[in-house]
Amino acid sequence: MAKNLTKRSEDYSKWYNELVIQADLAENSGVRGCMVIKPYGFSIWERIQAELDRMFKETGHQNAYFPLLIPKSYLSKEASHVDGFAKECAVVTHYRLKNDENGEGIIVDPDAKLEEELIVRPTSETIIWDTFRKWIQSYRDLPLLINQWANVVRWEMRTRLFLRTTEFLWQEGHTAHATKEEAIAETIQMLSIYADFAENYMAIPVIKGVKTESERFAGAIDTYCIEALMQDGKALQAGTSHFLGQNFAKAFDVKFTAKDGKQDYVWASSWGVSTRLMGALIMTHSDDSGLVLPPNLAPDQVVIVPIYRSEEQFEAVSAVAKEVMKELRAKGMRVKFDDRDTHKPGWKFNEYELKGVPVRLAIGPRDVENGTLELARRDTFEKKTISRDTVVDIVEKLMVEIQESLYNKAQDFRKENISQASTYEEFKKVLEAKGGFIYAHWDGTSETEEKIKNDTKATIRCIPLDAKEEDGKCMVTGKPSKRMVLFAKAY
Amino acid sequence: MAKNLTKRSEDYSKWYNELVIQADLAENSGVRGCMVIKPYGFSIWERIQAELDRMFKETGHQNAYFPLLIPKSYLSKEASHVDGFAKECAVVTHYRLKNDENGEGIIVDPDAKLEEELIVRPTSETIIWDTFRKWIQSYRDLPLLINQWANVVRWEMRTRLFLRTTEFLWQEGHTAHATKEEAIAETIQMLSIYADFAENYMAIPVIKGVKTESERFAGAIDTYCIEALMQDGKALQAGTSHFLGQNFAKAFDVKFTAKDGKQDYVWASSWGVSTRLMGALIMTHSDDSGLVLPPNLAPDQVVIVPIYRSEEQFEAVSAVAKEVMKELRAKGMRVKFDDRDTHKPGWKFNEYELKGVPVRLAIGPRDVENGTLELARRDTFEKKTISRDTVVDIVEKLMVEIQESLYNKAQDFRKENISQASTYEEFKKVLEAKGGFIYAHWDGTSETEEKIKNDTKATIRCIPLDAKEEDGKCMVTGKPSKRMVLFAKAY
Repeated sequence: MAKNLTKRSEDYSKWYNELVIQADLAENSGVRGCMVIKPYGFSIWERIQAELDRMFKETGHQNAYFPLLIPKSYLSKEASHVDGFAKECAVVTHYRLKNDENGEGIIVDPDAKLEEELIVRPTSETIIWDTFRKWIQSYRDLPLLINQWANVVRWEMRTRLFLRTTEFLWQEGHTAHATKEEAIAETIQMLSIYADFAENYMAIPVIKGVKTESERFAGAIDTYCIEALMQDGKALQAGTSHFLGQNFAKAFDVKFTAKDGKQDYVWASSWGVSTRLMGALIMTHSDDSGLVLPPNLAPDQVVIVPIYRSEEQFEAVSAVAKEVMKELRAKGMRVKFDDRDTHKPGWKFNEYELKGVPVRLAIGPRDVENGTLELARRDTFEKKTISRDTVVDIVEKLMVEIQESLYNKAQDFRKENISQASTYEEFKKVLEAKGGFIYAHWDGTSETEEKIKNDTKATIRCIPLDAKEEDGKCMVTGKPSKRMVLFAKAY
Repeated sequence: MAKNLTKRSEDYSKWYNELVIQADLAENSGVRGCMVIKPYGFSIWERIQAELDRMFKETGHQNAYFPLLIPKSYLSKEASHVDGFAKECAVVTHYRLKNDENGEGIIVDPDAKLEEELIVRPTSETIIWDTFRKWIQSYRDLPLLINQWANVVRWEMRTRLFLRTTEFLWQEGHTAHATKEEAIAETIQMLSIYADFAENYMAIPVIKGVKTESERFAGAIDTYCIEALMQDGKALQAGTSHFLGQNFAKAFDVKFTAKDGKQDYVWASSWGVSTRLMGALIMTHSDDSGLVLPPNLAPDQVVIVPIYRSEEQFEAVSAVAKEVMKELRAKGMRVKFDDRDTHKPGWKFNEYELKGVPVRLAIGPRDVENGTLELARRDTFEKKTISRDTVVDIVEKLMVEIQESLYNKAQDFRKENISQASTYEEFKKVLEAKGGFIYAHWDGTSETEEKIKNDTKATIRCIPLDAKEEDGKCMVTGKPSKRMVLFAKAY
């Protein structure tokens, strides 16, 4: 553990990169743009997966698995879809290597060229809708509510650990419905589940909204999103849910017979969150000492560190530590007792601070005598000596308190960093001075959106679902606008 | 549900293919050799994953994630490894598609050719050992016990659902140790975990053994395996655990400093099971009526089907069904109440028989009056009327009983189908007459092994770990042999 983090105020981006590596979350691999998710980082992802998977199943979704490799012709069937993804596709062209006859070592066997190239899935709409055609005949087969946990590859030119990587892990939901209304309701339901998860598990407040045309998913009628604000004043899109209309049903000829005997194309949604959520989690709560994790997602919620010199002291301290661990676990808490003799207590304190364990308990010989423990809270650095008898109660309450406190802190930060601009000048000034989310009127055209992006690097994050209707004028063109939209520079 | 299964006795292979599709386990996709794992099939795989993952974690392993794409040069670093996998590699050569200028539609952009080709992982030793080099410096970093749940691609020419597919899902464990002994102990421990899982969850008796040189994993010093016997008398390799020696440590220069300050290459193991286990599960227990699932892995252990004509009857029957469901769930059982009004009871009975739900409960109006239910057992087809008051007790005991009974049945079948041959003539006769496992003496040479394979299609499945030492003569060459080995035709 080489704890020497750059301060956020010095270089936020550098702080982030160092933190991800030092806290053992992920690292770059030898493969361009692809990361290795290290065990500690992966254990957080597993908790994210477990909670989301439960939420999906509770709302009637089932998991399935579809092929990684997608024939090029499938990808081409929905015109705007292929336009959106063609530029970043990893393409499999051969299926064999061989020893070069001229001693050049292992080469691609030119005789093993595929008749049709295969694309490593950047998303799975096409292969899934090719399958749905076989699964759907009648209204009785609907709704079809499928989710897949998978890896996907998008050939990104500039990558950053968790935020943008060539390969990433995600879940992608794909649903089919008899009516437009049902498909839209599903799209919105999943957006709400994402928002619920972000707020109650990740302790990240999010704004729900709909994307403008230019930021829409390739092949969608409407893309809904949740947007979060990072500590550097930049926005991060944390999840998207797409209403696909009948686009993919038409491209893959998926029709159903309704109750009244009529045939129609089915209606669709798709929705996903990815390992990008790890980036949001890290950037929302962490500080200059390292990671800060909300208890609901922390792999270890409590760590117990023994303090001792002699073997005898170790025995006495360990006995108490193990009792406490047992009692906390009985209450459903995730507790680790770090009794390694290869590292000193001070080293361990640093380590768990860096790794964001919400509560640290230390027990020394004097604590054993006095019936006490030392409790340290990661988020506030508050330390106090508590009585052995009250530890379970206190820690149990702290889990709830820390979870809420992190959410409130993030929400306070966001409140302070949401501005409103009525002129373009004001907009640019606020953007430069403090960044954050900025509400402003916009005339609804892609041209104006593009101009703002080129001038300022800020984009329309979304048209918030709760934006109130009002008559306004576009801050750039002065043309009429019905509601303010949300701008920010974004990850 | 189109239940019209070919009988096993007529055409075992056809029966298997039909069953996999009709029971909604998996189907072929539009991508050559790649399957779609359907929701019901995937829910069984999820149970397999959950139990194995728990067993891995209980023995100190951590999950992590490594890149899907492996540079060609990595794969080439361990000579026998690349020899083993070169012939079946999916190769990524380009990273972009584009619209053809001559109107040929979407084509691979020739300007986006990769400098070095990337291989879609067929297994991850090379990328993982390239990473381990950064993670391991000292004996303090050892043992390193990593597991990954992932998809892999091997370009198989002849594929069959679950048994052999171009892409499959698996877990691959990769561990690093300070000593040879520790690495071997880990290899054997994981083999035992696989055997434990196969026997206690899948209800499949297995034989633990070590592979001959010709069947060894490419890059291993020793490959251990568990071998199961299917109902058609063919063997199925259900899991492998490899002692890799220092091969990969040397290829990727992974050294550690020991306690005494000396540097040495680390010792390694790797081990994996895949969606192939689904094939083993299906072929061990299922019958001419469909799938038979052991309760420990069944997604639904109990299904309750209501029988009614009027709405009033439905209300009365449902009330009891829901009570029973609640009570069974309180005991930890997985219970489904199928109250769909789109299908008749007879259709549902067939459906759950086909899908292998261990216990079916039916409740009709007369049952409500009499305080009874009808219980049907999938494995034996036994039906009886039981009292409402005893249902929880009876079903709870049945879960254990069915699990054991399936195991015992499979074990009895295996006992009947293990033979011993002292001459090659006898060997060939037994192989043709009944198949199954055949113990015989072998002179230890690859030549003889090859000859037997060419003559009979039978291979040495393993040298069983419990094979007793005895002086014998090879059934083919008459040369001395120290122990009998296990032959079979295999999947």
